[in-house]
Amino acid sequence: MAKKAILSYSGGLDTSVCIPMLKEDYGFDEVITVSVDVGQPEQEVKNAEEKAKLISDKHYTIDAKDEFVSDYIFPLIKANGDYEGYVMGTSIARPLIAKKVVEIAEKESASAFAHGCTGKGNDQLRFETIFRSTGKDVIAPMRERNLTREWEIEYAKAHNIPVAATKDKPWSVDENLWSRSIEGGRLEDPSFVPPEEIYEWTTSPENAPDKATIVDIGFENGVPVSLDGQKMKGYDLIQKLNQIGGANGVGRSDMVEDRVLGLKARENYEHPAATILLKAHKDLEQLVLTRAELKFKANVDTQWSELAYQGLVDEPLYADLNAFIDKTQERVTGTVKVKLYKGGLIVVARDSPFALYSEDLVSFDSQTIDQKDAEGFCKYHGFQARLYKQLKK
Amino acid sequence: MAKKAILSYSGGLDTSVCIPMLKEDYGFDEVITVSVDVGQPEQEVKNAEEKAKLISDKHYTIDAKDEFVSDYIFPLIKANGDYEGYVMGTSIARPLIAKKVVEIAEKESASAFAHGCTGKGNDQLRFETIFRSTGKDVIAPMRERNLTREWEIEYAKAHNIPVAATKDKPWSVDENLWSRSIEGGRLEDPSFVPPEEIYEWTTSPENAPDKATIVDIGFENGVPVSLDGQKMKGYDLIQKLNQIGGANGVGRSDMVEDRVLGLKARENYEHPAATILLKAHKDLEQLVLTRAELKFKANVDTQWSELAYQGLVDEPLYADLNAFIDKTQERVTGTVKVKLYKGGLIVVARDSPFALYSEDLVSFDSQTIDQKDAEGFCKYHGFQARLYKQLKK
Amino acid sequence: MAKKAILSYSGGLDTSVCIPMLKEDYGFDEVITVSVDVGQPEQEVKNAEEKAKLISDKHYTIDAKDEFVSDYIFPLIKANGDYEGYVMGTSIARPLIAKKVVEIAEKESASAFAHGCTGKGNDQLRFETIFRSTGKDVIAPMRERNLTREWEIEYAKAHNIPVAATKDKPWSVDENLWSRSIEGGRLEDPSFVPPEEIYEWTTSPENAPDKATIVDIGFENGVPVSLDGQKMKGYDLIQKLNQIGGANGVGRSDMVEDRVLGLKARENYEHPAATILLKAHKDLEQLVLTRAELKFKANVDTQWSELAYQGLVDEPLYADLNAFIDKTQERVTGTVKVKLYKGGLIVVARDSPFALYSEDLVSFDSQTIDQKDAEGFCKYHGFQARLYKQLKK
Amino acid sequence: MAKKAILSYSGGLDTSVCIPMLKEDYGFDEVITVSVDVGQPEQEVKNAEEKAKLISDKHYTIDAKDEFVSDYIFPLIKANGDYEGYVMGTSIARPLIAKKVVEIAEKESASAFAHGCTGKGNDQLRFETIFRSTGKDVIAPMRERNLTREWEIEYAKAHNIPVAATKDKPWSVDENLWSRSIEGGRLEDPSFVPPEEIYEWTTSPENAPDKATIVDIGFENGVPVSLDGQKMKGYDLIQKLNQIGGANGVGRSDMVEDRVLGLKARENYEHPAATILLKAHKDLEQLVLTRAELKFKANVDTQWSELAYQGLVDEPLYADLNAFIDKTQERVTGTVKVKLYKGGLIVVARDSPFALYSEDLVSFDSQTIDQKDAEGFCKYHGFQARLYKQLKK
Repeated sequence: MAKKAILSYSGGLDTSVCIPMLKEDYGFDEVITVSVDVGQPEQEVKNAEEKAKLISDKHYTIDAKDEFVSDYIFPLIKANGDYEGYVMGTSIARPLIAKKVVEIAEKESASAFAHGCTGKGNDQLRFETIFRSTGKDVIAPMRERNLTREWEIEYAKAHNIPVAATKDKPWSVDENLWSRSIEGGRLEDPSFVPPEEIYEWTTSPENAPDKATIVDIGFENGVPVSLDGQKMKGYDLIQKLNQIGGANGVGRSDMVEDRVLGLKARENYEHPAATILLKAHKDLEQLVLTRAELKFKANVDTQWSELAYQGLVDEPLYADLNAFIDKTQERVTGTVKVKLYKGGLIVVARDSPFALYSEDLVSFDSQTIDQKDAEGFCKYHGFQARLYKQLKK
Repeated sequence: MAKKAILSYSGGLDTSVCIPMLKEDYGFDEVITVSVDVGQPEQEVKNAEEKAKLISDKHYTIDAKDEFVSDYIFPLIKANGDYEGYVMGTSIARPLIAKKVVEIAEKESASAFAHGCTGKGNDQLRFETIFRSTGKDVIAPMRERNLTREWEIEYAKAHNIPVAATKDKPWSVDENLWSRSIEGGRLEDPSFVPPEEIYEWTTSPENAPDKATIVDIGFENGVPVSLDGQKMKGYDLIQKLNQIGGANGVGRSDMVEDRVLGLKARENYEHPAATILLKAHKDLEQLVLTRAELKFKANVDTQWSELAYQGLVDEPLYADLNAFIDKTQERVTGTVKVKLYKGGLIVVARDSPFALYSEDLVSFDSQTIDQKDAEGFCKYHGFQARLYKQLKK
Repeated sequence: MAKKAILSYSGGLDTSVCIPMLKEDYGFDEVITVSVDVGQPEQEVKNAEEKAKLISDKHYTIDAKDEFVSDYIFPLIKANGDYEGYVMGTSIARPLIAKKVVEIAEKESASAFAHGCTGKGNDQLRFETIFRSTGKDVIAPMRERNLTREWEIEYAKAHNIPVAATKDKPWSVDENLWSRSIEGGRLEDPSFVPPEEIYEWTTSPENAPDKATIVDIGFENGVPVSLDGQKMKGYDLIQKLNQIGGANGVGRSDMVEDRVLGLKARENYEHPAATILLKAHKDLEQLVLTRAELKFKANVDTQWSELAYQGLVDEPLYADLNAFIDKTQERVTGTVKVKLYKGGLIVVARDSPFALYSEDLVSFDSQTIDQKDAEGFCKYHGFQARLYKQLKK
Repeated sequence: MAKKAILSYSGGLDTSVCIPMLKEDYGFDEVITVSVDVGQPEQEVKNAEEKAKLISDKHYTIDAKDEFVSDYIFPLIKANGDYEGYVMGTSIARPLIAKKVVEIAEKESASAFAHGCTGKGNDQLRFETIFRSTGKDVIAPMRERNLTREWEIEYAKAHNIPVAATKDKPWSVDENLWSRSIEGGRLEDPSFVPPEEIYEWTTSPENAPDKATIVDIGFENGVPVSLDGQKMKGYDLIQKLNQIGGANGVGRSDMVEDRVLGLKARENYEHPAATILLKAHKDLEQLVLTRAELKFKANVDTQWSELAYQGLVDEPLYADLNAFIDKTQERVTGTVKVKLYKGGLIVVARDSPFALYSEDLVSFDSQTIDQKDAEGFCKYHGFQARLYKQLKK
């Protein structure tokens, strides 16, 4: 029986040189490549497919765009998912890609997985935690050998792998529907001010229109379902908001991030739709959830985000947290009006049938409570602190 | 002996009508008024003083501006203080005002405190938790009687209290060095888009300069000490940043807030310096603190903020939390470059002698760790999740 | 139409004198009494009923024993419910009692609720938060008047209320299926060693059998379903465990507790079944849940317990937390062997089909991981702490 | 220059065979052994020393007993240190041992560290995180080779290493002043009831005296300073309590523990003094700390314990947490009376000059608060839950 390896394939130089390597150095008979479409640029998916036809034994392109939205982005919105205060991007797509690759591995009865990640970043962890649950081997050629780009180009030429003529970019980019990340090169230095050219999804605030754009986002059970009053599919809504937000210069992040292994790394991101949707969602929660829910859900959201960042969506805790979150989201229905202007955004109005504020509620309340009742409450506010102060005397 | 009441006095109609009331209705012989300067507009302090001379038995104006910065705002910055995700404002000044009033009460051997708060808001709680620790009575005429503004004006006229000719503003405003809050009237409706006129400290983003402003903020031990390379006293630095930020349209909040008693209330705030300093401080922490510190300090900060919001600075936990925070801030020294532009702000660079990232550190590390070591780490990443998955099969 | 009050009735002196008071002092035409059976001594329920026949206008005795187990005790076990480290007792029954009283109030179209709690304890809060959600008035005669026991006895005699001849006990007791609490009198002093006579459910350890008893408790989805291999209804199982545990001197608590209003109070409890079931349940969780689940669930459990202690079962967060907890409990199935001996208990063995430990799992694991892989993990353990140490040099 | 390795040495077979191995297989010229006395049996320390004289090039025995108490056990008591609900033992001594070994390595200008841990447990992580901060190599022969006991005995004989004649025990034991752990063999099976013979510090409850022992423990600033009224040094006090508690059968744990790498392992422990001191300390905190402090400190304690369990005492967060804890402990002074009886223990009384409960405080309070004031508080209890319920209708 042929010994098959399944390679998670992007079409780039790293994963391309893996193909002959897996045969020559690791003894595989066949290398099957898989590209998963999670909303990266169409051309990128196409290029991978065409290149694979030339150099791999078999190739799969899997359209996971809708699944990405429903099973990964929507739960993230409900969880106000961030990492250390910033929008998550790359992390959220990795488990889905890995799971699709596992499906092909099972279909093809492959004996091992391969990926092109180095030993420094997070993606090796996110991929492997899913690959390894099959009990099959995982091979990471880039991690095992310290290959230089020059060596890779030589090796590619020698193995008839087409090498893009375009000059190598000084930074490394990863894109999916939710986010575009830019890292590496001089950006690594946290005190280096990033040049405008690293951004592609977002106009510079200075070049954004002189007139603000207001968007009306409709939510049902915690997920966005309409834009400016018009019902839209999740994928389309996010794509549309990426355009609108990007045109207004909204949705850039510049941060120093703690990678899972412990190294701090400067990262830059673009994510217009994410910035808008997360802001609007949180604002709506503030209107409909009780203070006790808001306070505790902040912990749940943080824990959810940590698991998601690490790619640990199979950890049972992830499902437990989602059960909590889904219960809270039953009332997160309503509309939020967000003003976008030259890189800034502010929520200017919000409305919900489940608002814990309304004139009616206030008047219901005043039937049984009058201002004087607050006096009793005041007397107990900070009660133990007063006992303590008395004790100190 | 004369029975004296000490009244926390703002110069407004509510606290002014309290003066004759305390004598006529509550039987006090003397009403001593106290105004505490925490950075509200100079004219406001002056007006209170002049009015008090006409209608109170004795008046104190206390300059607490520097104490406000060193003992309240600086700890807040170190704690990344916010409430439900928004900059705190009014709350942070109340305990200081109350403590100054207590000092006067002791000096004057007064038998009771009085304040002009209603029974609906947070300030009654913040004042009284401090007043009541003396064991003296607290009187809140506005809370005990449901007075209308019309009645108050009649009463004021009948008691020779000057009533400002200016038409009553439809919203209620509170200012101190750190923040300006606007609430009430139509703003109460969370779906009402606030008019531009409510803002005084901040230019509308549309009217802000077409060119971005970049500020360089220097921190030492977690507190800001310099602006654009120039050492400055805390009070001056914050005032200056309020001007720069405000001119760039930076620092507006529009939120639905959970008051201590439980009512949700729509609140609008302006706080340019706060927005800039909190953003810069957090970014610097991200560079110098370990991931474990960042994660746990987020909990500490949230708890600190809750106590501060409720005015519970005498709760012993407040001092315990500050001990933790101060320990972490020993390394929060460095500079942060923030770009302000038409309402938006973004950190574009940061630097610190205590950065947990540097080329040197990276090279120290690579002496003993190579990429292959990550493989072992990967094998344990999500280990129990894999056992669980295996079990399900 | 007759003006009716619904009184939560225990049969004791306090609630008995409320009956004529509600008519004479509060102007009600009818006082309807309700006693809810949550597992207190049968005789107590019966006495209340008989007394009510003599002095109230109408009486309801409601058997809520099974509902108490399924809707309150079982969720508590799943949540490892405790308060400040101790078994909760009284608190857990109050919301159920209140809800049953509300049902009668609606059936009877009553216009107000009444209860016999004072203004010092927790029960007033637990009852009223449920009563008040109807919008009806709540009357608390004991809180409004500072009645002495002597006055109450005179008043009772004058109104033909039978007064128990038994000498007044120096402490106040509350019982339900889950717990018996004893408080008041000299017990209030935390340095007073409680006398043996306060305990009724538990033998003194010194008088317990000289031979240990081992019980085998079977759990399904987080709740106990069998004892020593025999399936049992929840109510019967708990009652049986109260007997077995009590006979072995197991299940006493002596603590200083923070009441909701802020006063610390010394409390003594007995709860043999609770002690055993909570210990066994937690031990089983330790075997089947992942470390991540155990760690986060501890927070969830603490929050659940705080709401339960305060009687806030209608707070939406309570349902959210239960959604999380129920998800985790899907695997909390198995048996736990507990040894009871002279006041002590220790889990000596546990077993579960969902155990995250088994020889098989260990061998599955060793297919792909060998000891050497731990080296890589070690190199990243405490990585940032090492960077930090390097930096300090 | 001679190439030296420093070996953390226990005198057992594993670390003994490492000595010739380090020379033969790893090319060291000298192997210097270090044993650190943290309260393990005196004979064990002596045996290691004697054996080392025969087979190592140089040996150090370091008495770290007092440092262990003051710098590791006392902070643990203040932090109510446990792991997953159980007393920590082995973990707490490892960092101290490692630091002493590092001191010798620096003195001897050694080029590498060696230890005898396998690749399955926690100790490799605890040792190495400290060793590796020096930048020197770490060698773990037991982890790199999968040696059987038989092979080791043969190898020992061939290298003139004395092998204890005693039959190999079926479990592995680790002892220090704070705790004795027993693991391995049949104990690994969580459903195996452990035989009585595994315990050495504690009498079986059945054989403990028929009369209870009551101990009075005096605390100052969170640490124990006296026993039954007599001032004692920390080491002596703990040793004495180990005897008293052990004689009463107090202080056994039987648990399933999550190791750092993720494997669950059944562990048995004995720790009489720890059980008593932790129970007493927590009880005293309950008397003197505010509810807010107790609630938040529980989080701090859990985080402290996690770091301590993992040996991460050099993580800066560890010092931050200690700053918080030390602040709270300023008032944790007083005495606690604990009753020990046949394996069980219960606190029966407690007293402190800083108690937040006293008759005086209660009377101070009643000057300004009366029962009726609670009504206002009640009206706001569960306020948002009521709004929510109203909304649902």
